[in-house]
Amino acid sequence: MKRIFLTFLALGSIGVCTLATAAQPADPLPSWNDGDIKQAIVRFVTSVTTEGSPDFVSPEQRIATFDNDGTLWAEQPVVQLEFVSYQIKKMAPKHPEWRSENPYKAILEGDSEYLINDYMNNHGKELFELVLETHAGMTVEAFNEMVLDFLGNAQHPKFDQSYNKTSYQPMLELLAYLRNNQFKTYLSSGGGVDFMRVIAMDTYGIVPENVIGSFAINSFEQIDGEWKIVKGSKNVFMHDGMTKPVGIHSRIGRVPIFVGGNVRSGGDIGQLTYSQTSALPNFQLLINHDDDEREFTYAEPDNASLDAAESGGWHVVSMKNDWQRIFSFEEPEQPE
Amino acid sequence: MKRIFLTFLALGSIGVCTLATAAQPADPLPSWNDGDIKQAIVRFVTSVTTEGSPDFVSPEQRIATFDNDGTLWAEQPVVQLEFVSYQIKKMAPKHPEWRSENPYKAILEGDSEYLINDYMNNHGKELFELVLETHAGMTVEAFNEMVLDFLGNAQHPKFDQSYNKTSYQPMLELLAYLRNNQFKTYLSSGGGVDFMRVIAMDTYGIVPENVIGSFAINSFEQIDGEWKIVKGSKNVFMHDGMTKPVGIHSRIGRVPIFVGGNVRSGGDIGQLTYSQTSALPNFQLLINHDDDEREFTYAEPDNASLDAAESGGWHVVSMKNDWQRIFSFEEPEQPE
Repeated sequence: MKRIFLTFLALGSIGVCTLATAAQPADPLPSWNDGDIKQAIVRFVTSVTTEGSPDFVSPEQRIATFDNDGTLWAEQPVVQLEFVSYQIKKMAPKHPEWRSENPYKAILEGDSEYLINDYMNNHGKELFELVLETHAGMTVEAFNEMVLDFLGNAQHPKFDQSYNKTSYQPMLELLAYLRNNQFKTYLSSGGGVDFMRVIAMDTYGIVPENVIGSFAINSFEQIDGEWKIVKGSKNVFMHDGMTKPVGIHSRIGRVPIFVGGNVRSGGDIGQLTYSQTSALPNFQLLINHDDDEREFTYAEPDNASLDAAESGGWHVVSMKNDWQRIFSFEEPEQPE
Repeated sequence: MKRIFLTFLALGSIGVCTLATAAQPADPLPSWNDGDIKQAIVRFVTSVTTEGSPDFVSPEQRIATFDNDGTLWAEQPVVQLEFVSYQIKKMAPKHPEWRSENPYKAILEGDSEYLINDYMNNHGKELFELVLETHAGMTVEAFNEMVLDFLGNAQHPKFDQSYNKTSYQPMLELLAYLRNNQFKTYLSSGGGVDFMRVIAMDTYGIVPENVIGSFAINSFEQIDGEWKIVKGSKNVFMHDGMTKPVGIHSRIGRVPIFVGGNVRSGGDIGQLTYSQTSALPNFQLLINHDDDEREFTYAEPDNASLDAAESGGWHVVSMKNDWQRIFSFEEPEQPE
């Protein structure tokens, strides 16, 4: 175990506490293979945190945002849609009509083609109905219980792990490395904000107020004499693609200087582009899923994210080549 | 000058730095008269920050929200409406039709009765039109410049000060006191989020990401080849009254344990009530404007805020009796 050396200043009547010479662990990113990407990350973080450096950025302005699905955890299948399916199946006994009524019938019969067709031909209108059915009309507390029930019982079909165990070890190290360097780390993902908050702290060390996602307008209501936040279904804001900068501005009010996203739908091009509008030094990380053995291989039909990375000078992570290890569950547990 | 004694712990490979025995300045709230309210504030802050106390709250959970108009700065007149009026007058030369067209005509002629009648009889529909005219369709950068121009040129009619100088000195001390005790301080106000962000840091020491207010859905657009956030006018969320808990939940995802609001419209009953749903110790502060000499005296027609304070056990501040000094500009400047 490394010793940490701390230097402290007591200035005036206000205690100012800075980790002026806090030694980093020998390697803050042990699950990253040595290579261009890892070196670029360390170089960037070092330059913006070195006082006197022309690239120095004050701690207050060190904002980092990360997509979730496919960037911090696996997105095959999309976890929140598995949650929808899990809930519809749980609710089905009280809704016998669902057995003959789509899209419920398709979910209950495991007909994934039906929803894919809906998504392709109908802009996901029926899928959206299912999302609202399982995400609105209950208190936030009741919803949180539903998510915990799902995480405690459902398992990833390929990895036989609870879904919140499918986070990427190199990205967990990156989040910790940034926070150790006084970055504020945010989720900035298309997932529902309340859904992600249930896992954000334990899985990523990200506090609830730093979770940015899709949302609807809720209400504050008295239920059995107690005031509760009740999840609503009106004025839905989808935090995805070109609306991610809008959601980030609304929530943070400044441009992130470090953004991580991934190749699949082009959903992170917006926030990666947005970070390049900062007047401060900035860094873009785009994860490419090219490791079919350890995870999955998939690409975008129009290659938009990789094209944008090429023209924008973003750093593209090859999961196959840049990550020495993908999941924390891959390694044998270490003795205490 | 007091010496500050700091105790530090280095645990594992993560440096943990706590101000375990950091002495507070002799009086962290010098502009508050000694009395029940001041004592209750200090007692609450001490109890939630004392490790081992049954009321101890971890720093991460110390969330405090404050209304702005009438709680942190003067609201007679409402500053953001003065901004609207200022902008309409600036824009008028390019809109000769406004001279004969209400509500513009009323603004240009200083007919405040017109807008009050609109507010009372028409739910402020025309006022809302003026707000959108002056708050939408421009980039955030351009809007920020408009706010700075207003603050640099407009003056409060009673105090002959720029509007951002009308903040209450006792509340500035309270914000600093809470932050020194590792509270995260938030604005939670009906004002526009982008408007308040322009003043929040310099005036209150509140970072942009901690400003919660009313907003519309913006867009991310390319203008002359540069990507910009453009202020929109759709899906307006009014952060006021019973929607304040909704906005706070959406932005923070946890219940604040310290809330400050004021008597006028009942607009803070929601967030004050919300804080009492916390499972943690919590504190409610309600400011009553009863000092006509140093500020203004006004009340609510239905007395709802004071009634709620009575039944909820909230702490009601009498500006006349509890505040030794109201504005920072009241005292002669101290020599360096």
